[in-house]
Amino acid sequence: MGLHEDMIAMGDLAVAAAGKLVQLSTGEKNAALEAMAAEIGERRSFIAEANKKDVADAERSGLPSAMVDRLLLTDARIDGMAQGLIDVSGLPDPVGKTIERTKHKNGMEIERVRVPIGVIGVIYESRPNVTADTAGLCIKSSNAVILRGGKESLRSNSAIADAMIEGGKKTGLPAGAIQLIRTTDRDAVRELVQLEGKVDLVIPRGGESLVRAVTEQARVPVIKHYKGVCHTYVDESADLKMALAIAENAKCQRPGVCNAMETLLVHEAVAKEFLPSLAKVLEKNGVEMRGDAAARKIIPEAKEATEDDWYAEYLDLVLAIRVVGSVEEAVKHINRYGSRHSDAIVAGSEDTQRIFTQQVDSSSVYVNASTRFTDGAEFGLGAEIGISTDKIHARGPMGLEGLTTYKYVIHGEGQIRS
Amino acid sequence: MGLHEDMIAMGDLAVAAAGKLVQLSTGEKNAALEAMAAEIGERRSFIAEANKKDVADAERSGLPSAMVDRLLLTDARIDGMAQGLIDVSGLPDPVGKTIERTKHKNGMEIERVRVPIGVIGVIYESRPNVTADTAGLCIKSSNAVILRGGKESLRSNSAIADAMIEGGKKTGLPAGAIQLIRTTDRDAVRELVQLEGKVDLVIPRGGESLVRAVTEQARVPVIKHYKGVCHTYVDESADLKMALAIAENAKCQRPGVCNAMETLLVHEAVAKEFLPSLAKVLEKNGVEMRGDAAARKIIPEAKEATEDDWYAEYLDLVLAIRVVGSVEEAVKHINRYGSRHSDAIVAGSEDTQRIFTQQVDSSSVYVNASTRFTDGAEFGLGAEIGISTDKIHARGPMGLEGLTTYKYVIHGEGQIRS
Repeated sequence: MGLHEDMIAMGDLAVAAAGKLVQLSTGEKNAALEAMAAEIGERRSFIAEANKKDVADAERSGLPSAMVDRLLLTDARIDGMAQGLIDVSGLPDPVGKTIERTKHKNGMEIERVRVPIGVIGVIYESRPNVTADTAGLCIKSSNAVILRGGKESLRSNSAIADAMIEGGKKTGLPAGAIQLIRTTDRDAVRELVQLEGKVDLVIPRGGESLVRAVTEQARVPVIKHYKGVCHTYVDESADLKMALAIAENAKCQRPGVCNAMETLLVHEAVAKEFLPSLAKVLEKNGVEMRGDAAARKIIPEAKEATEDDWYAEYLDLVLAIRVVGSVEEAVKHINRYGSRHSDAIVAGSEDTQRIFTQQVDSSSVYVNASTRFTDGAEFGLGAEIGISTDKIHARGPMGLEGLTTYKYVIHGEGQIRS
Repeated sequence: MGLHEDMIAMGDLAVAAAGKLVQLSTGEKNAALEAMAAEIGERRSFIAEANKKDVADAERSGLPSAMVDRLLLTDARIDGMAQGLIDVSGLPDPVGKTIERTKHKNGMEIERVRVPIGVIGVIYESRPNVTADTAGLCIKSSNAVILRGGKESLRSNSAIADAMIEGGKKTGLPAGAIQLIRTTDRDAVRELVQLEGKVDLVIPRGGESLVRAVTEQARVPVIKHYKGVCHTYVDESADLKMALAIAENAKCQRPGVCNAMETLLVHEAVAKEFLPSLAKVLEKNGVEMRGDAAARKIIPEAKEATEDDWYAEYLDLVLAIRVVGSVEEAVKHINRYGSRHSDAIVAGSEDTQRIFTQQVDSSSVYVNASTRFTDGAEFGLGAEIGISTDKIHARGPMGLEGLTTYKYVIHGEGQIRS
């Protein structure tokens, strides 16, 4: 069999599994998640061994050390995966909930009920714990999942997926509920995103080239989990001490994540007062600054920002800085260069806050707080499969509810339409 | 300028309009809708004149009479369009509603707020009243819309869109809030569905070739409004008199619409009793029957059904009939051949009803009622932009709420993440 036939077979198996998953009770799903966690624990040394080989290959091939670190499964990270599955088993089951119920004037009961989406494809990059996190959330929401991880973590992902499949098997989870694409053939992604009628949703989590490939090739619905080009705008009405603390936190507390700030915008009326103190704090944290002409007049130590800098997701200790004339100009900059992820305003004026929250077209808009809070757990979703930068279906942190859809169930006593 | 540049310009104008639409109050939007309705009324004879030319061309080109009828704008239909806009102005505004509000333990207020999607592309076929219905719903939900109708109704659509644009202009609606693609170049569809970063959602409403073209070419999110291959399953526990009334209604009351029944499934234990009386009723209504071997043993007047019949959306007085051994077999048939639109069971047994409602993977699943009720107005949504056969974002009848998304708005007092 070729790749095309393999992928069709995978899709068919997933569809069959989805048909059975929808029949499982919450207790049955939780038992499966607990068995998976136990199996990961039992296979700890086997998983670590597989990971060691992936890491060795990655180092040999010259992968940047930040990526090697993301690939690495320490003992604590393996524990974290198992505990994550236990945590998900403890979350409320979204499936079967009645969203609303109305009565038609002819007496029919019309109920809108939360149901699984069906078959979900998840395409992700280096971190192997995504295998466990993603599969756990899909099972809890009664979806079958087809996983496609990065080629540099294939051995680790396979070991984790095998443990989960075995745990599922022991508790009667249908075969095909969790499947991992084990070929490194790049065409497998194209095949996956074109499995119309079999795959109901594809979630690409990753960078430019992955998201582009999926977007161009997909024939099934896609919810992109793309980059975070996050902004903090310091208004003329801001408490500048607060602004300084928020800017430092958003940039420096964990620069390698998608909700970290990449560009700071500051109102011209306070730029002269704010930027020198900002520069001092950033310097202390080892942050490289890249400013527009107005900013560099105030802090000449900043390098010159180019047009590319406004679009950049540095994921590093680099910050682009621009001086703007108004909140409207800040909004325009953010909607033009941002990625609709997380953006903050620091302002005292409620009118200005309102302009910003209404007009900035991002999943998470902050007033007087750090963008670093955009996260499923922080937002009370329990856990997240990722952060959607799309607007359709699920926006921002995407939890169990985002992995469901609904159907209308109508109960009558023979009603017909006249 | 070529088509590509034209479409980019259209996209840019729509994005600019969307940025202004989000700032409008409910009152401002309602005033625009009322002005549009008035303008349609005032231009009644001009619209009818344009439509007359479309109809004449359609007749000359040999378009089937059913399609010519759908194209025709009678006086009543023009009134209906204007009244539809008034009705939409009276619906509650979905934008700005708080969906939920939580308080982070650090004191931040996290609010999930309903917001417009942004720019919506709608691609549709012959009926020109869709122009008014669709644009009205998009404006009410603060979205900019780019419309692409069928080429056979271009003059009618242009006259309607012009009236609405003029009504909007008079009440300060931003330019570009409603745009109509006025070229019949087929490539315009491809250009539209590839306007990444400008178009947030495309809704194709139509048949196989339209939906296929969009699915294959799209790079922006798509919610398909595709065909309705709807089933009625008559269980062994059914009240057969009720089943007969429901089957007649689902097939005959308005056979040309997407929620009409196309295939009837009947349990073998009651087939002998049910099918002869069904055949009598269908014959009275002029319905052609196509049965499987088991059905034709009981009602030999039925033609032989082929594999294609199980997939067919006849939209006509034709019914496929199959005898099944169990509710599970009925579910399997529906999930395999159906279009996830609307399916009904007639059954007395609650266990059997539950198997059917849980396992049939369709937007609207009926127990003891006709599939003909799948409709935004019947389901209490006020109005609908169409019926989604996709599972992502909006499923089944898609009303104003389906034309919105949400954002998180977080209010803090300087909170940072530790």
